[in-house]
Amino acid sequence: MTSYRILRARLGVLATAALLATGAVYAKGPSPEPIEPIKPHRVTHPAKVELGKKLWFDPRLSKSGFISCNSCHNLSMGGSDNLKTSIGDKWQKGPINSPTVLNSSLNLAQFWDGRAKDLREQAGGPIANPGEMAFTHDLAVDMLRSIPEYVAEFKRVFGNDKLSIDEVTLAIAAFEETLVTPNARFDQWLKGDKKAITAQELRGYQTFKASGCVACHNGPNVGGNSFQKMGVVEAYQTDNPAEGRSAVTGKDADRFNFKVPSLRNVALTYPYFHDGAADTLPEAVDTMGRLQLGKKFTPQENADIVAFLKTLTGDQPKMVLPILPPSSDQTRRPQPFE
Amino acid sequence: MTSYRILRARLGVLATAALLATGAVYAKGPSPEPIEPIKPHRVTHPAKVELGKKLWFDPRLSKSGFISCNSCHNLSMGGSDNLKTSIGDKWQKGPINSPTVLNSSLNLAQFWDGRAKDLREQAGGPIANPGEMAFTHDLAVDMLRSIPEYVAEFKRVFGNDKLSIDEVTLAIAAFEETLVTPNARFDQWLKGDKKAITAQELRGYQTFKASGCVACHNGPNVGGNSFQKMGVVEAYQTDNPAEGRSAVTGKDADRFNFKVPSLRNVALTYPYFHDGAADTLPEAVDTMGRLQLGKKFTPQENADIVAFLKTLTGDQPKMVLPILPPSSDQTRRPQPFE
Repeated sequence: MTSYRILRARLGVLATAALLATGAVYAKGPSPEPIEPIKPHRVTHPAKVELGKKLWFDPRLSKSGFISCNSCHNLSMGGSDNLKTSIGDKWQKGPINSPTVLNSSLNLAQFWDGRAKDLREQAGGPIANPGEMAFTHDLAVDMLRSIPEYVAEFKRVFGNDKLSIDEVTLAIAAFEETLVTPNARFDQWLKGDKKAITAQELRGYQTFKASGCVACHNGPNVGGNSFQKMGVVEAYQTDNPAEGRSAVTGKDADRFNFKVPSLRNVALTYPYFHDGAADTLPEAVDTMGRLQLGKKFTPQENADIVAFLKTLTGDQPKMVLPILPPSSDQTRRPQPFE
Repeated sequence: MTSYRILRARLGVLATAALLATGAVYAKGPSPEPIEPIKPHRVTHPAKVELGKKLWFDPRLSKSGFISCNSCHNLSMGGSDNLKTSIGDKWQKGPINSPTVLNSSLNLAQFWDGRAKDLREQAGGPIANPGEMAFTHDLAVDMLRSIPEYVAEFKRVFGNDKLSIDEVTLAIAAFEETLVTPNARFDQWLKGDKKAITAQELRGYQTFKASGCVACHNGPNVGGNSFQKMGVVEAYQTDNPAEGRSAVTGKDADRFNFKVPSLRNVALTYPYFHDGAADTLPEAVDTMGRLQLGKKFTPQENADIVAFLKTLTGDQPKMVLPILPPSSDQTRRPQPFE
């Protein structure tokens, strides 16, 4: 990615898109395509990952005892909940579409507005968000400290008796870092297996490049590495009040700038956009073409791009469902209805 | 179990309890103890089980797209939700404590009041219950039929193109039948490993037998094989309006008769009783002693019985989290907020 990224930074987005359309940037450098294969994750601390996996699936990190990380980032469903916006404590309607956790370690920041700089910072958010898990960090830590198996496991992993929220988010982030999806058919093609994708899928990729989609959706995560305005050529119509990046920077120029979502596993992560308004890939591709590129794709172009996007589904994380250590008699009981 | 069950049927519950207290029934027959080890489940149709597992974890069987079978019978948490009563569609408060799915194939019937004769009949219940998954069987089947991978998988498993709710519940039941928990330390002891349980745990078992607990909690599931009145010696005080078996039979004599819950994995399935009123095992043991047996256990007896009960935790089902087939463009989207 490096040479491509430097080039892109120099030329600016639109110029790059034009160059991409001519194919001029592919002639040189080690990375002839603007999309790169995902590398498998190498686990360096398996015990920390295993602890993080338990925390990921543990609904006792919510006030109700009903909502876990996996409720809204369901690893059976592309790391998302496939809802327009998520369901929080007491069935509150979430403000924004739940982004997939898959390959999220490759993003430049977390949340649609990038308000968390990394996975660790992100992980603490939903636990304490009154509209999501509705707990507090203190209560979450108290819960874990009341369970002897958790206490022992934190000690084994971190080598101390602290059991702090920092250790909780470190473990969750370590688990999340494992959730990459290598080996998509498109990655096989990138690596030289020219039979890994069909003629239509290849045509879709060529249209995707030639139309300028790759200006934002590039790199190993096919996105996730920049903030861009939703509605460049034409304004995006939505009832969703989220204004994106400006909520973080306070700058008016950042209004409606959102983190470009990854297109990895996009066939699994419907519905699309920050408001979840597009139910299907054909709809999302059509909207993106018109609003971001001023281009109305023909039905054939749309179908080709959709076919290409489906080649970005990688190996889903294969994992054994964790068995959670039971609460002790001292563990404060969940309060779903209070 | 056979000889013990016949004997018990002949003598009646109270007489049996008295006999058990003397140890008289242990002298003869092939089964010297009233509790029997759980046998591992032998899968005869792995493809059906695998399909059932997907359905088990699929929240698209609910109106909201958020609640799956596993939401209330969480296989990370002893097959239960560890809540007093469950959370249903739109955060409705359930009427009764969610029983564990573990070893439920060994029960004489399903639900606390036994209104479903088997797992297959049970499985259809929550999907269409407006207070639980709030869907309809027709909509559930429509959803599955709109997903090509599900269509193909049902065809492979059942050899036809029907894809009916009967096939859905058959597959879920086939999966549930695999959810047995053999190899508890107590089962190891039953099979002759006298070091598998401690002196206190053995003392607890002896008190459990001598006090008459085994009159209802017996067989391989340590319960689950009869309906009994909640509050024999002393009435059970609860705000919960459930009246148990009488809702099924219409007989006044069946009021407050509930299916005796299994004590397998009871350390994981808190809180206890049909209303989930007892948060801890010491509390549940104390209440059962007083209300069912007219016996106030000493703190030592209570602690011993609790120690014994914890030996009933068996090997939890070890399973790879399924990856669900994605919805197609034709799949009706969930309606969590409508």
